[in-house]
Amino acid sequence: MTKPYKLVGRNFQQKNTHIQVGDAVFGDGSFPVIAGPCAVENEKQVISIANSVKNAGAKIFRGGAFKPRTSPYSFQGLGKEGLLFLAKVREETGLPIATEVMDVETFDLVEEYADILQIGSRNMHNFSLLRRAGNSDKPILLKRGMAATLAEWLMAAEYILEQGNTNVILCERGIRTFVTHSRNTLDLSVVQAVKKESHLPVIVDPSHAAGIRDQVISLAYASAASGADGVMIEVHNHPEDALSDGTQSLYPDQFFMAMKKIKAIHAIIGKE
Amino acid sequence: MTKPYKLVGRNFQQKNTHIQVGDAVFGDGSFPVIAGPCAVENEKQVISIANSVKNAGAKIFRGGAFKPRTSPYSFQGLGKEGLLFLAKVREETGLPIATEVMDVETFDLVEEYADILQIGSRNMHNFSLLRRAGNSDKPILLKRGMAATLAEWLMAAEYILEQGNTNVILCERGIRTFVTHSRNTLDLSVVQAVKKESHLPVIVDPSHAAGIRDQVISLAYASAASGADGVMIEVHNHPEDALSDGTQSLYPDQFFMAMKKIKAIHAIIGKE
Amino acid sequence: MTKPYKLVGRNFQQKNTHIQVGDAVFGDGSFPVIAGPCAVENEKQVISIANSVKNAGAKIFRGGAFKPRTSPYSFQGLGKEGLLFLAKVREETGLPIATEVMDVETFDLVEEYADILQIGSRNMHNFSLLRRAGNSDKPILLKRGMAATLAEWLMAAEYILEQGNTNVILCERGIRTFVTHSRNTLDLSVVQAVKKESHLPVIVDPSHAAGIRDQVISLAYASAASGADGVMIEVHNHPEDALSDGTQSLYPDQFFMAMKKIKAIHAIIGKE
Amino acid sequence: MTKPYKLVGRNFQQKNTHIQVGDAVFGDGSFPVIAGPCAVENEKQVISIANSVKNAGAKIFRGGAFKPRTSPYSFQGLGKEGLLFLAKVREETGLPIATEVMDVETFDLVEEYADILQIGSRNMHNFSLLRRAGNSDKPILLKRGMAATLAEWLMAAEYILEQGNTNVILCERGIRTFVTHSRNTLDLSVVQAVKKESHLPVIVDPSHAAGIRDQVISLAYASAASGADGVMIEVHNHPEDALSDGTQSLYPDQFFMAMKKIKAIHAIIGKE
Repeated sequence: MTKPYKLVGRNFQQKNTHIQVGDAVFGDGSFPVIAGPCAVENEKQVISIANSVKNAGAKIFRGGAFKPRTSPYSFQGLGKEGLLFLAKVREETGLPIATEVMDVETFDLVEEYADILQIGSRNMHNFSLLRRAGNSDKPILLKRGMAATLAEWLMAAEYILEQGNTNVILCERGIRTFVTHSRNTLDLSVVQAVKKESHLPVIVDPSHAAGIRDQVISLAYASAASGADGVMIEVHNHPEDALSDGTQSLYPDQFFMAMKKIKAIHAIIGKE
Repeated sequence: MTKPYKLVGRNFQQKNTHIQVGDAVFGDGSFPVIAGPCAVENEKQVISIANSVKNAGAKIFRGGAFKPRTSPYSFQGLGKEGLLFLAKVREETGLPIATEVMDVETFDLVEEYADILQIGSRNMHNFSLLRRAGNSDKPILLKRGMAATLAEWLMAAEYILEQGNTNVILCERGIRTFVTHSRNTLDLSVVQAVKKESHLPVIVDPSHAAGIRDQVISLAYASAASGADGVMIEVHNHPEDALSDGTQSLYPDQFFMAMKKIKAIHAIIGKE
Repeated sequence: MTKPYKLVGRNFQQKNTHIQVGDAVFGDGSFPVIAGPCAVENEKQVISIANSVKNAGAKIFRGGAFKPRTSPYSFQGLGKEGLLFLAKVREETGLPIATEVMDVETFDLVEEYADILQIGSRNMHNFSLLRRAGNSDKPILLKRGMAATLAEWLMAAEYILEQGNTNVILCERGIRTFVTHSRNTLDLSVVQAVKKESHLPVIVDPSHAAGIRDQVISLAYASAASGADGVMIEVHNHPEDALSDGTQSLYPDQFFMAMKKIKAIHAIIGKE
Repeated sequence: MTKPYKLVGRNFQQKNTHIQVGDAVFGDGSFPVIAGPCAVENEKQVISIANSVKNAGAKIFRGGAFKPRTSPYSFQGLGKEGLLFLAKVREETGLPIATEVMDVETFDLVEEYADILQIGSRNMHNFSLLRRAGNSDKPILLKRGMAATLAEWLMAAEYILEQGNTNVILCERGIRTFVTHSRNTLDLSVVQAVKKESHLPVIVDPSHAAGIRDQVISLAYASAASGADGVMIEVHNHPEDALSDGTQSLYPDQFFMAMKKIKAIHAIIGKE
């Protein structure tokens, strides 16, 4: 079968795409870390976590204002208020903001506040959203769908590039398998497979894949060792009280310690 | 774990929900068949197929005007023109129309023409779309996501019911597995599992699950035998020239023969 | 890729292989039913169940004397004593016996008593066992491995045919997926896929696939409708007291009623 | 659900089991590397590869004399002759030998020559083989089945411990998923999951998981970073001519370079 994608292909562009956001560059051989809570809960929370993760070396702050939730009865995020808190974080810490955009209706609003727009796993095949993202001038963080093949994932990116936005960061976050000891199965083999097929940077989200704190740290190290272009990790100042995903969020101290090893591992991998 | 859904649960409503569309009733023990091509291609095509499937006993005509496609370079459907052709089919044959609605932006338009609004697998977790569907007064055909658990699927339906639309028809269409001899693996065990958990009707789409004509017929019979509330089958007058999914579409003659056996099987299953 | 198997292929032999065991023929368009308990527990139990299933129309009695169990602490079967009880069943009811053979060490013993030797899912890639089965003159019931592709399954059969035993009945029994509402996901699409690739008969075991009584009946009907060459169903006179797999065993009355519909469905499918 | 295993559980034994083989210790926080070709082909080949991998820092030599092959027509290994070549490797290099044992029939023979007896994925549920391994005084390398849950894998180990052999090294080698860009999906989340549940050491085989050379190196680094107790890597002096699994075997030079980074990564992970 001939490759069905064009613009995302290594054939189309040999050199790695570099995507700069604040101090961070994705795709140039460095290893920027995105960190923060699953959901924005209040101003104090995000400022506190942002200071912690910045101090530990994170380059970008993440936090969800619009949350995709399996149940309509779960906390759905603070919406615009959450975006305002994220803007406050950027103002106070200087960290760029990555946050999820869930639909075309709220795209303009989220685009106004975010430095990186995340499209979640459940929306990887939301073609209207992909096209709208293709008309943005902000970088897009495109998570892999839970059951997406590599070809389908790259094709979803193609929808974005085809509209004119070439700044797409791919993000592996685990696939659905029969396994029950972790929430999803992190597919690290996809990192090199992406690099072979595409010039786009690819990062890893071990937090959603694992769903369990102890595994997150181990998988974050493994992600750094895999040759990925960065990692995204959930950190919460009070995981036990988190409104979502508490069990997988690292404590700030854990994150601080983990960052040292992540940097050290990347230094080894990066050497020729 | 306590069941996280409410309105869709058998606990909430003991009796099966009955959903009437034209002559067809979903959920009352009958077995309405929805048939038609994957995509609307032109007026002559849809009229021809509609006459064939009506003659064979189909109760509802299906055809896509807006097509979700993995590749941005594939045929994306005729859009509004396709809807007009579908309206013509209804006018000429009296068959109600089932067609996919892909996003909130085009919802009003599709809603105007369709008798059943289909939400596809890739959109099962498109929460904005689910909420919009919940505010429609048309029945919603909610396909199971390719990697969705039963609980996630029912929760997606809950989003619709929670907004006020109780007319949701669930549709099993195959899940993603390691198997390569069929496109997806049809999960017929889910039929009885749905019936145990929920009062909503559940139908089966063997065409997308199989992806191969010979398997479609076999799986359509199996669906009828499983106790499902109906089946949706792709039929094309010239499958070899179809703009999408030709290899899985039945020829009108095949469909005519298959319908006889489908009815006979359902008659056996329905008996106490 | 060229097909790697030879003897099992439809190319090698166009006509369906017919395998006669007692009154039953697998592969000739009829639909023999194999029924009995998961494990042989005592003489009275097997005689009672055998009379019930014979009366309902089953052609072959099944029961395990050697049981593969995930835990070393679970009931492992009665061994030779169980085989003697099975011989008693044959003597009293005239039904041929299908029973599992777990290893080369006990092959001679099981071969002496059984009319059909079953190789279980966990042993589908036990090559020594496959070769030994290939040197038997008894028919082999080869279950599909839980994660086996069609090609791997047919290749396992090839090991048997290559040694000289051409009487192999394939048995689909569900594959491992992310699904949790049933124990395994029954892959009925494999029935037509086998028939296209191979001349060997293929039957279905809905009991192990489902693991839940209500689903078993539904899936047994679906199996009959799929065009398979037979079905194997667990029946127990006191499922609530069964030493293994009680929750998936049908009561004799349920089986009796189910058999009527199974026969009626097969009669419809069989017509040209 | 109560844990069904006993002897392998962390509850039964708090302290990590240490298993010494030659210079290597599995489970004490070190990171022994097992390396060698998939199959033993001839004396010259194995001596050459063994010298290379020893020079690079491998502690144990691997090579298959009895090969489980999907097809009966594929190279099945040299059998006893292969074991003699492995003995020669040990004599010349001092490296202990790890090799697969496929059945009870050849167990005594393989046991005589091997220092570590490997039970392959396809045999994880070969209970006769597990029991025979439990009566050996040699360490057993127990690979995870392709579709085995953590509980099933640990239960397979329990069969061995229950017979008296407590020296079991678990080996993750990838699970079967829908993914096609690698042969199997390496499940690194299982490493910490094993460590939580069990005191047994767990190593990783990235070669079989990936099936593609470039991915193997990346996954070997990730394995070292995951906190596993070692890694097993295929190395071949002429991968392009290998009788099996050539595309996933590293060249000796690649392995030499990779070992430096593996050691450096482990040094970072090991630090408190």
